[in-house]
Amino acid sequence: MSMPDAGRLLDALFTTERMRAIFSDQGRVRGMLDFEAALARAEARVGVIPAPAAEAIAARCHAELFDMAALAQGIALSGNPAIPLVRTLTALVARDDAEAAGYVHWGATSQDAMDTGLALQLRDALDAFESDLARLSGALARIAETHTHTPLAGRTWLQQAVPVTFGLKAAGWLSAVERERERVRELRPRALVIQCGGAAGTLAALGDRGLDVAAALAEELRLGLPDLPWHTQRDRVAEVATTLGLLVGTLGKMARDLALLAQTEVGEAREPDAPGRGGSSTMPQKRNPVAASVALAAAVRVPALVSVMLTAMTQEHERGLGGWQAEWETLPEICALAAGALEQMARTMEGLEVDTARMRANLDLSDGLILAEAAAMALARHMGRARAHALVERASRQATEQGRQLREILAEDAEVRAHLSAEELDRAFDPGNYLGIAVELVDRALAARAEREAGA
Amino acid sequence: MSMPDAGRLLDALFTTERMRAIFSDQGRVRGMLDFEAALARAEARVGVIPAPAAEAIAARCHAELFDMAALAQGIALSGNPAIPLVRTLTALVARDDAEAAGYVHWGATSQDAMDTGLALQLRDALDAFESDLARLSGALARIAETHTHTPLAGRTWLQQAVPVTFGLKAAGWLSAVERERERVRELRPRALVIQCGGAAGTLAALGDRGLDVAAALAEELRLGLPDLPWHTQRDRVAEVATTLGLLVGTLGKMARDLALLAQTEVGEAREPDAPGRGGSSTMPQKRNPVAASVALAAAVRVPALVSVMLTAMTQEHERGLGGWQAEWETLPEICALAAGALEQMARTMEGLEVDTARMRANLDLSDGLILAEAAAMALARHMGRARAHALVERASRQATEQGRQLREILAEDAEVRAHLSAEELDRAFDPGNYLGIAVELVDRALAARAEREAGA
Amino acid sequence: MSMPDAGRLLDALFTTERMRAIFSDQGRVRGMLDFEAALARAEARVGVIPAPAAEAIAARCHAELFDMAALAQGIALSGNPAIPLVRTLTALVARDDAEAAGYVHWGATSQDAMDTGLALQLRDALDAFESDLARLSGALARIAETHTHTPLAGRTWLQQAVPVTFGLKAAGWLSAVERERERVRELRPRALVIQCGGAAGTLAALGDRGLDVAAALAEELRLGLPDLPWHTQRDRVAEVATTLGLLVGTLGKMARDLALLAQTEVGEAREPDAPGRGGSSTMPQKRNPVAASVALAAAVRVPALVSVMLTAMTQEHERGLGGWQAEWETLPEICALAAGALEQMARTMEGLEVDTARMRANLDLSDGLILAEAAAMALARHMGRARAHALVERASRQATEQGRQLREILAEDAEVRAHLSAEELDRAFDPGNYLGIAVELVDRALAARAEREAGA
Amino acid sequence: MSMPDAGRLLDALFTTERMRAIFSDQGRVRGMLDFEAALARAEARVGVIPAPAAEAIAARCHAELFDMAALAQGIALSGNPAIPLVRTLTALVARDDAEAAGYVHWGATSQDAMDTGLALQLRDALDAFESDLARLSGALARIAETHTHTPLAGRTWLQQAVPVTFGLKAAGWLSAVERERERVRELRPRALVIQCGGAAGTLAALGDRGLDVAAALAEELRLGLPDLPWHTQRDRVAEVATTLGLLVGTLGKMARDLALLAQTEVGEAREPDAPGRGGSSTMPQKRNPVAASVALAAAVRVPALVSVMLTAMTQEHERGLGGWQAEWETLPEICALAAGALEQMARTMEGLEVDTARMRANLDLSDGLILAEAAAMALARHMGRARAHALVERASRQATEQGRQLREILAEDAEVRAHLSAEELDRAFDPGNYLGIAVELVDRALAARAEREAGA
Repeated sequence: MSMPDAGRLLDALFTTERMRAIFSDQGRVRGMLDFEAALARAEARVGVIPAPAAEAIAARCHAELFDMAALAQGIALSGNPAIPLVRTLTALVARDDAEAAGYVHWGATSQDAMDTGLALQLRDALDAFESDLARLSGALARIAETHTHTPLAGRTWLQQAVPVTFGLKAAGWLSAVERERERVRELRPRALVIQCGGAAGTLAALGDRGLDVAAALAEELRLGLPDLPWHTQRDRVAEVATTLGLLVGTLGKMARDLALLAQTEVGEAREPDAPGRGGSSTMPQKRNPVAASVALAAAVRVPALVSVMLTAMTQEHERGLGGWQAEWETLPEICALAAGALEQMARTMEGLEVDTARMRANLDLSDGLILAEAAAMALARHMGRARAHALVERASRQATEQGRQLREILAEDAEVRAHLSAEELDRAFDPGNYLGIAVELVDRALAARAEREAGA
Repeated sequence: MSMPDAGRLLDALFTTERMRAIFSDQGRVRGMLDFEAALARAEARVGVIPAPAAEAIAARCHAELFDMAALAQGIALSGNPAIPLVRTLTALVARDDAEAAGYVHWGATSQDAMDTGLALQLRDALDAFESDLARLSGALARIAETHTHTPLAGRTWLQQAVPVTFGLKAAGWLSAVERERERVRELRPRALVIQCGGAAGTLAALGDRGLDVAAALAEELRLGLPDLPWHTQRDRVAEVATTLGLLVGTLGKMARDLALLAQTEVGEAREPDAPGRGGSSTMPQKRNPVAASVALAAAVRVPALVSVMLTAMTQEHERGLGGWQAEWETLPEICALAAGALEQMARTMEGLEVDTARMRANLDLSDGLILAEAAAMALARHMGRARAHALVERASRQATEQGRQLREILAEDAEVRAHLSAEELDRAFDPGNYLGIAVELVDRALAARAEREAGA
Repeated sequence: MSMPDAGRLLDALFTTERMRAIFSDQGRVRGMLDFEAALARAEARVGVIPAPAAEAIAARCHAELFDMAALAQGIALSGNPAIPLVRTLTALVARDDAEAAGYVHWGATSQDAMDTGLALQLRDALDAFESDLARLSGALARIAETHTHTPLAGRTWLQQAVPVTFGLKAAGWLSAVERERERVRELRPRALVIQCGGAAGTLAALGDRGLDVAAALAEELRLGLPDLPWHTQRDRVAEVATTLGLLVGTLGKMARDLALLAQTEVGEAREPDAPGRGGSSTMPQKRNPVAASVALAAAVRVPALVSVMLTAMTQEHERGLGGWQAEWETLPEICALAAGALEQMARTMEGLEVDTARMRANLDLSDGLILAEAAAMALARHMGRARAHALVERASRQATEQGRQLREILAEDAEVRAHLSAEELDRAFDPGNYLGIAVELVDRALAARAEREAGA
Repeated sequence: MSMPDAGRLLDALFTTERMRAIFSDQGRVRGMLDFEAALARAEARVGVIPAPAAEAIAARCHAELFDMAALAQGIALSGNPAIPLVRTLTALVARDDAEAAGYVHWGATSQDAMDTGLALQLRDALDAFESDLARLSGALARIAETHTHTPLAGRTWLQQAVPVTFGLKAAGWLSAVERERERVRELRPRALVIQCGGAAGTLAALGDRGLDVAAALAEELRLGLPDLPWHTQRDRVAEVATTLGLLVGTLGKMARDLALLAQTEVGEAREPDAPGRGGSSTMPQKRNPVAASVALAAAVRVPALVSVMLTAMTQEHERGLGGWQAEWETLPEICALAAGALEQMARTMEGLEVDTARMRANLDLSDGLILAEAAAMALARHMGRARAHALVERASRQATEQGRQLREILAEDAEVRAHLSAEELDRAFDPGNYLGIAVELVDRALAARAEREAGA
């Protein structure tokens, strides 16, 4: 349904419809029930339980049959969601088939259901991330290509430094996004595996058939079969968190750049317009960078949530006490926030409004100081880097104090005139002449991406 | 209603009914509407808007009149919950009174509504914390009193060290809880203040009546009047987070102790029993320490959430971009988790099952090593601390290697015999004789608490 | 000595000389030795050890007598710094007075020395913080006063919003700094207390004289006497961390504002100039905001370090295993970073270069859009807030699209003309007329500060 | 030298000699100088600067020639370590060869030197991690093999659950360690790359030779050549942090297990003994688990430090302000702590003292409750899982209340007797019969490891 659940008003802003569905209560219950159904089928396949019992069980493994309020009560009492779920499922099955009810959850433990259910949710989540990452990558590639040659001020320490191109800026974002895609791909085999260990990892309740059941279960669910149960070895799920943490960092950097470019005093790029989007409750002229705010908020929140997942790894013996429980809401929250940030950045980059005239105009703001390095390098060929640097530093200070063009001040300097003609000085002060290998770098990034896409 | 909202299945475990109500979507909307109603009334009182308009507005400020799904849509578009709320409220008022509708949210900005609404929610939350802290303090005082003289093993680095009393252990928990109560009290005047600054903190839209309106508003809501608007000075709300962070740390320490005491191999204390509580989906004998798991999970999660609130303080100019948004779900989450942990510890301490026989038995586990310091101090009076320490250290090693009683080994040592009679040795090896000022300390803690309670 | 220690090259940038001295290895050793000397004296005063022994011990409690390399070896072996320190001290005393050596560290435990030593270091640190906070507060008060009436663009979501004054901006910083001073003051009695509990908190090795010794020790060191030993109740030290975390957040906000104001495209304020300060290795014109970078780096690092201190609170029984050890370098690091950030901001604010002309010029950048709310409020008196907001929003959009002044577009609107004369429109578009209670608020903040200073 | 630097007393405990050397001030300076030397040589190779200049420069690129105190002063002024380093290097070169001095740092920016230097340090660090991971993996494999069949209590929620084997426990640790090795390997190509972009990533100062220089530089240093400069795309270094964060989590889990096993009341395993190791300043009998404390402290600290690296990713435009600076000490600290934890765990596992008799004895502690699931499964074959679970749950409660053996109570139950013979009950209550596939799982883990080792 499209109505936001109570208590989740802000989800509409901070995450996506899809991720909310995956990690809703229904989604969580569905994951565990898919495990119970598959477990029964797997056990029937290897002959541990009767086949009709498996079918009777699987027939009741539908989230719609479960009363969430009653489950919640049971969780409060028992301390985890699988216990009341298994109890309710058993009762549901027992209505029609008392014998089958005896085989529900056969040989498994709560955490088997919860972790395998989580793996199923994470598979859907990673699919969603991969698809939105592809969307964002495409949008960035288009910007990089379109603006390969568009000059704008490069800025370091929030000061204009030397000219760059907007294509290079976009290629920088793109290059990072491509690495995030690679990380998500590498993550899948480690994270998307079943959990199947029984009470303490020995599957003792299944006698000597434990491995057969586990293998069949993995097959049923198309998840990987891990070498061992991993009840308290939480690196698999913690790595989902760290991978998404890196992704959110990359998105936050992008959002910070956009927010800065969109400042009234800079005005070089804006988020796409839409009726009612980014307005103010009191200022009629406002068009707030909402997408950037969502991604930046995620970039503030997710790193700490990643640290929760890492801290939670210190789990005791064969089942954690505190650490495991700390994961239950944290990993879904990381997924939700990462998805929201990603979707906002994808949509923004697809419709980004770029003001190349303003980019050009801003290059002139500094009275030529942005080309101080260009001038210094032109002189360095004649007098060495250090001396040229000092000379131009002095001239730059003068330019600032007197509010004059750096070019002018240099032109008055005898030493400069001894080495550079007026034409050479002019050339040094044309931003278009001081873009280095910006164009090559953009091409490099686009070519690498194209190659990967072709290979994929 | 008592049904858990979708997406909040685990809330039943991790937080309290009361805290969930305060920070539900309804609660958030109610807070903002209480602001809008009070603002209108305050403005009418100082003559900025007509009194009938204020009443017409206040009459519509009821959360039940608002469609949460529609609000959510509006939030996704505008980037904050106040904008669609104000728009909807205006439309509701306009149905009956077009003129009054023109005065909705007069001179205010979204953040005024959001932050003041938050302050109202926080007031309810702090009330709840104070009352549950009193409950926990009472329960701990009772334990400390009952077990003033109950000896058990003091443990350092998870090794038995010297005897302590269970009363002293409880007094340690109590003493920390009392400091948390003090911190919560100190926090109130800084945190529970209105926000009223208009678009950028100048209340310019109210001409020269800004301060009068603000003062009247504070009075209407019985909140403090801050010296200045604090739109981007977030220490007030961040301090709520840090204060609760300290509280959760104190609760986590308590829960860790309980979890360790409840180990099968220790068995000195257990959470109160209740039908179905702490069972296992597969192991019939299990009684899991659910309350401890909740508090420990909070102790893993909340520190990181506190760091989010601190990181989020770096907000830009007159309204934050990213940092502010990062607060919106984080502070409620901290409150929810802290409340859950607190309630679980209060309930647990009220019904704690203490096994004094097991405490006594465990004191004998180490073949007297737990009284090694006692023996060393008895000898130190005769041979100095360092030499006595070395002698007893050697004997302790022997005792461990040979699986014999330390007392026996010391009794065989000529140097020991030269200084201590058999009786003196016996006395050194009675845990009840080596409790130092444990009893005095418990009395001290209880007296201090009684004094505060009397004063309060 | 002024030479930075190896491994601490960056300390010169990130912290202060004074804080480095306090938390140097020497400082740590000095703190523990001050404890040992005071303990011996206290024990002599209450008659637990002979007075001459106390003097012999105190005479050796000088950090210069200790070989740091040897201590380090001992720490690696024993797991904490107090053990090798006590052993070395005992040996030093024994050289001259074997009997006195027997009384070194009498009845105490490692953590007593470490925590009390820490309290002594923290007292020095808090003194330093209070003095630099006073410096910063003074500088901010001067800026607020000087620029009470200086208009500049208020900015929300990094977009120009409505005019404010630079005095109000500074008053906002000031108000937060004043709250931080209050927090540091409130913290002192809780944090600056001795630790004196012996092996497990009972002071059993002192028989029934434990409390007397503790009281005398507190007196010797002019530290508070806590109700109980607090070996594993870590809220006292964790609160130092949270308090400094709030301070750093406040400094980070200030630094973020400065960094944004110093952007080439904004240019309204700059850090004070100094030869060689903030240069670039390649760009001669650069003057990087170094102070802001230090404070912002602290604002990124400290929140996470605070979370370490909070996570570390979950300490086991009578002595922590992991949590306690996690504190040892973390709290000093928080102090160091907070001190560095504070000193940089104090120095910066004392010499801040303010460009009021640029502030004024930037107000004109938006073709009058920054006064859209002013225009809307002027109209709202005639047509209600909502309708006026919509009308001006439409006109603002037009102004942006056509690159024209908002005032002009409004002047062409018949409905506007029906309500506002040209003069009234002009008045609405003068930033100086739309500053609301900015001046009053600055006065309020300055008066409150003056009152506190007078009271202090 | 082996003497610990002042201010680093605790390094002897918390990190390794090797990691300290890598990330010492000398190490940092060496990294940057290696960059400067290689840059000069690369530029000479592609003809951008004269070959003799390159040699003159490289000849001065030795850390020993640099005065750390002077560098520190320069850093405080300029805001980063590369600026004073380049200035000093230039002066050193100029002493003999003024022309060559003009080519120092030609076309590069501070961050190029710092990031490439960091990559060189990280290469050494990753080598160290891989070698200590191999050591730990070997030790764990040996334990798993030796104890394949050693039964001990499996513990969930810190309660005895069902029997497992110590080999399986070790195999769980091993399996996680093997995944950490895999992650470190995958990380190398992304992290170990040069940084070479010049002022803002265009290498403009090198004209059109930028890419050639970069490629030659990468070759000189045997580092990877990235597609683009990555000055503000920090995922590469942040991933080092997240990878080590996962590693530390895995080590923390291991250390927590060891600390719990070493409890006086459990006593199943202890850290290897060494003279003076883990003693107490006051309790002669103590043998504290120092290695566990180091790893657990790292597990508390590193997650938060990882969050710093992730938060720091939000860097502005072409050079970060705050975020970048936050990395400088944080990443080295993560490496240091991870190395310390790893080395301690490797050493501990190599010499772990295992008490199999105590393991066996502890299995008997629960009056047979640890085999409640075994009994329930034996009954479940006859009466279904749910009914058997309820029956045994009831009997378990009885056993606890009456302090009797569960087996006895079940033997008295008519329903039980109807289904199970005395022999069958005996079989159910033999831990050795309820180990499920523990042995297979250990073999699986060892075989997988052997295969990887063979392949490597």
